[in-house]
Amino acid sequence: MASRVLWRRGAAWLRGGAEPPGAARGRGSAGCRAVVPTCERYAVKRLPFARLEDGDVAFFERLMPGRVVSGEEEVKPFNVDWLKSVRGCSQLVLKPQSTAEVSQILRYCHERNLAVNPQGGNTGLVGGSVPVFDEIILSTALMNQVISFDKVSGILVCQAGCVLERLNEYVEEQGFIMPLDLGAKGSCHIGGNVATNAGGLRLLRYGSLRGTVLGLEVVLADGSALDCLASLRKDNTGYDLKQLFIGSEGTLGVITAVSILCPQKPKAVNVAFLGCQSFAKVLETFTTCRAMLGEILSAYEFMDEKCMELVEKHLKLSSPVADSPFYVLIETSGSNSTHDEEKLNNFLEQAMASGMVTDGTVATDDKKIKVLWSLRERITEALTHEGYVYKYDVSLPVGKLYDLVTDMRARLGQSAKSVVGYGHLGDGNLHLNITAESYSHSLLDVIEPFVYEWTARCSGSISAEHGLGFKKKQFIHYSKPAEAVVLMQQFKAMLDPKGILNPYKTLPSAPGRGAC
Amino acid sequence: MASRVLWRRGAAWLRGGAEPPGAARGRGSAGCRAVVPTCERYAVKRLPFARLEDGDVAFFERLMPGRVVSGEEEVKPFNVDWLKSVRGCSQLVLKPQSTAEVSQILRYCHERNLAVNPQGGNTGLVGGSVPVFDEIILSTALMNQVISFDKVSGILVCQAGCVLERLNEYVEEQGFIMPLDLGAKGSCHIGGNVATNAGGLRLLRYGSLRGTVLGLEVVLADGSALDCLASLRKDNTGYDLKQLFIGSEGTLGVITAVSILCPQKPKAVNVAFLGCQSFAKVLETFTTCRAMLGEILSAYEFMDEKCMELVEKHLKLSSPVADSPFYVLIETSGSNSTHDEEKLNNFLEQAMASGMVTDGTVATDDKKIKVLWSLRERITEALTHEGYVYKYDVSLPVGKLYDLVTDMRARLGQSAKSVVGYGHLGDGNLHLNITAESYSHSLLDVIEPFVYEWTARCSGSISAEHGLGFKKKQFIHYSKPAEAVVLMQQFKAMLDPKGILNPYKTLPSAPGRGAC
Repeated sequence: MASRVLWRRGAAWLRGGAEPPGAARGRGSAGCRAVVPTCERYAVKRLPFARLEDGDVAFFERLMPGRVVSGEEEVKPFNVDWLKSVRGCSQLVLKPQSTAEVSQILRYCHERNLAVNPQGGNTGLVGGSVPVFDEIILSTALMNQVISFDKVSGILVCQAGCVLERLNEYVEEQGFIMPLDLGAKGSCHIGGNVATNAGGLRLLRYGSLRGTVLGLEVVLADGSALDCLASLRKDNTGYDLKQLFIGSEGTLGVITAVSILCPQKPKAVNVAFLGCQSFAKVLETFTTCRAMLGEILSAYEFMDEKCMELVEKHLKLSSPVADSPFYVLIETSGSNSTHDEEKLNNFLEQAMASGMVTDGTVATDDKKIKVLWSLRERITEALTHEGYVYKYDVSLPVGKLYDLVTDMRARLGQSAKSVVGYGHLGDGNLHLNITAESYSHSLLDVIEPFVYEWTARCSGSISAEHGLGFKKKQFIHYSKPAEAVVLMQQFKAMLDPKGILNPYKTLPSAPGRGAC
Repeated sequence: MASRVLWRRGAAWLRGGAEPPGAARGRGSAGCRAVVPTCERYAVKRLPFARLEDGDVAFFERLMPGRVVSGEEEVKPFNVDWLKSVRGCSQLVLKPQSTAEVSQILRYCHERNLAVNPQGGNTGLVGGSVPVFDEIILSTALMNQVISFDKVSGILVCQAGCVLERLNEYVEEQGFIMPLDLGAKGSCHIGGNVATNAGGLRLLRYGSLRGTVLGLEVVLADGSALDCLASLRKDNTGYDLKQLFIGSEGTLGVITAVSILCPQKPKAVNVAFLGCQSFAKVLETFTTCRAMLGEILSAYEFMDEKCMELVEKHLKLSSPVADSPFYVLIETSGSNSTHDEEKLNNFLEQAMASGMVTDGTVATDDKKIKVLWSLRERITEALTHEGYVYKYDVSLPVGKLYDLVTDMRARLGQSAKSVVGYGHLGDGNLHLNITAESYSHSLLDVIEPFVYEWTARCSGSISAEHGLGFKKKQFIHYSKPAEAVVLMQQFKAMLDPKGILNPYKTLPSAPGRGAC
């Protein structure tokens, strides 16, 4: 087996001219095709919020002249999600520039009982970022200022609307990196990342936002601002309120500023892209590389051969290794390139010699690394070219991770166009995606609740990192006990008694809460 | 300067026979001297909870025969904190073995309006772990079972009363370590660690418990159990309720079980103990070693010369390096001893050559490493031999960290026995300790609120890792805005409407809440 391995550092395929990862995940890709309004597709009933009146628009125009967007065409990109899977019918987008403006907007909406949909880069995958009905869209697009950066501690404080990739460039110039990275980096806002507790590609190494976010400024539903914008690694004075807003998808408050701890920029980064003949080999490779690479392992991603077919077909990317049933992307980040390469080479030699991997390539320079990463990062984008995508994002014990894909493929047979699996194996996080020409209730009924029941049987999470948003909220019970959900509803009722913040999202409707 | 450096790997002083770190931080050290009852010293008024009656004791005796402790002498060690600084007058200690028993206890106490003081290893430093009046003590001492450990993922699930050091030994046998370590490891319970959001010695490398705790089981004030005991690295299904209990010091619920992610046991550990001629050199050494050691740096601790005097005097430990105004302990943890030693040696050479450090020693074997660590870990213990200790635990920008010690020393002059500074410099966390023969109101008035005002002026935290407990709760406003405190009080009122859980702790009394 080892004789089949061909290490191609900087081989010809790397000059294929792939776009930088994430480049295509902007708003520009949305809004062309007709998307069925969410309330029709899902037969949701509007809650009894007030309806927007001319006087309301006039109030906002006075508050922030020139930053109030109305008109169907202008508002349309904000009404449709990036996947073009859900569509609201908001008539108004507000673009505040300051926390004070967000406060005034919410105080007014609270008083008037107007529902509000906070929106960052609109790159969410569960329908959490766009309205369901006519909620006013509060966009953080113009809240894009860095407030401070401390070069000693690496602590960045910035407004919520800063784009992740811009922030990464900014801190990189000063010898640091953002503690998170994801395919949507070119569009997503840091406030949205925090509001959805985004995971992504660096979690294996730098941990979740629950550890790296040091402080938040949040405006509550009634317009009052909560300043928990500390810049301290340690602070045990009372309950950690900011944690409640991390991952609450804008349903408890609007995040207006973030304080976040940035790790030092690694001096050496290597990426290996490998082919494996079975999922068992993918797992064996993981265990071995975790032991041999230790503290320098910064990502362990996998994708199946179907994913590779799709990025080749739709995005014209080329596979750098021989066709294999599975592919693995391993990244190392460290402070000493000689040491790191030695560790990586030792691991690769063992992986080759033992037949764990059967082909592979390694990149050490930035450009080639980006090209390798794009194969993994742009799968989401490639999938959208297939038609409608049913997206699932589950946490499972790693040993069972791919069984769900195999079982789903067998279950769906010819009724799906493709069933693919990829994800953050190092975190136990599978992205299962099923494509079809168009949305179909009957196909959905075959997939759900099967996929959730399967996950729950393994004590997995039905949403590892994407959140619940609109599409998954009714399935929370597969991962959380009833008492926990009741408690969440109590928190929601306490912090947002009128329920104006991102309604119809995250939590199943509380019992007794009437629809109009 | 470099010529003064003397590297003594395994020198004679290492055979001084020091006790293992943390060994003396057990309950055994408490309870001898008379301690003034907290309610007298601080003139606190008892809240209108019910008083324990014979029928209550009979109920508990039936519920858990043989595990109900009464009698003044038997209860005394549970009434007094480890520092012998606060004393309650509880008449009853309950030692449940299961979550069901904790539920039954709380359901009964809630019904009867009896106050409850949850207690782990009773090693807290802010008076949070013992009663203030006659609260029933709910000890987790018998809830000490490991529930499961996954050797692939390193995820440990255990009952709340497991002792940290025992857990570390348990997971070490399987190639992992606990993600936290602290001087009290030999006595403290993991449930208490989580309830107080303990920081400690490994936070620099493995992050806070907010990232490493994956799940919790909690019994609420009314006795209902909340099962959030997930064992998943990623789970974004709804609000992360467990975060509210982390660091809530037993005021919102009783933690009964913990799911925690353990890092792999490093294959190579090195400890360097260094002398520096000024605090500026300590900072310079930190910046240099962070850059040169990168991902293998796992601790950066400092202590001043006064600390060294105290551990030498009271614990008969010997300094391994020439007398210096400041000492630094640097630990590396990595997967390749050759690489790690090379990185460390490169750093040490530079630190010596540039005069950042003027003396030092390095240890690579377990026993010698423990001896070096004991110099830093046992400062707390040494201080207790001086008399009464006024303890402060603040987060500050690292550059200003030691100014507080200098300013306090100047302010107190001869009125204090000693004013010392040490702590987790890598986390911006200073432990400022002031000793005197005995407790004195007038000395306290010179120290407080000065220390809190000083900290607040630097936007620091008045409690970095110890929590607020009983002693610091009135000072929360120095680190949190009024709106945040009001919100915390609302959470408390929602989760524990009768206020029976660890009353008089963490939060200042809510306005309008009458004392009896």
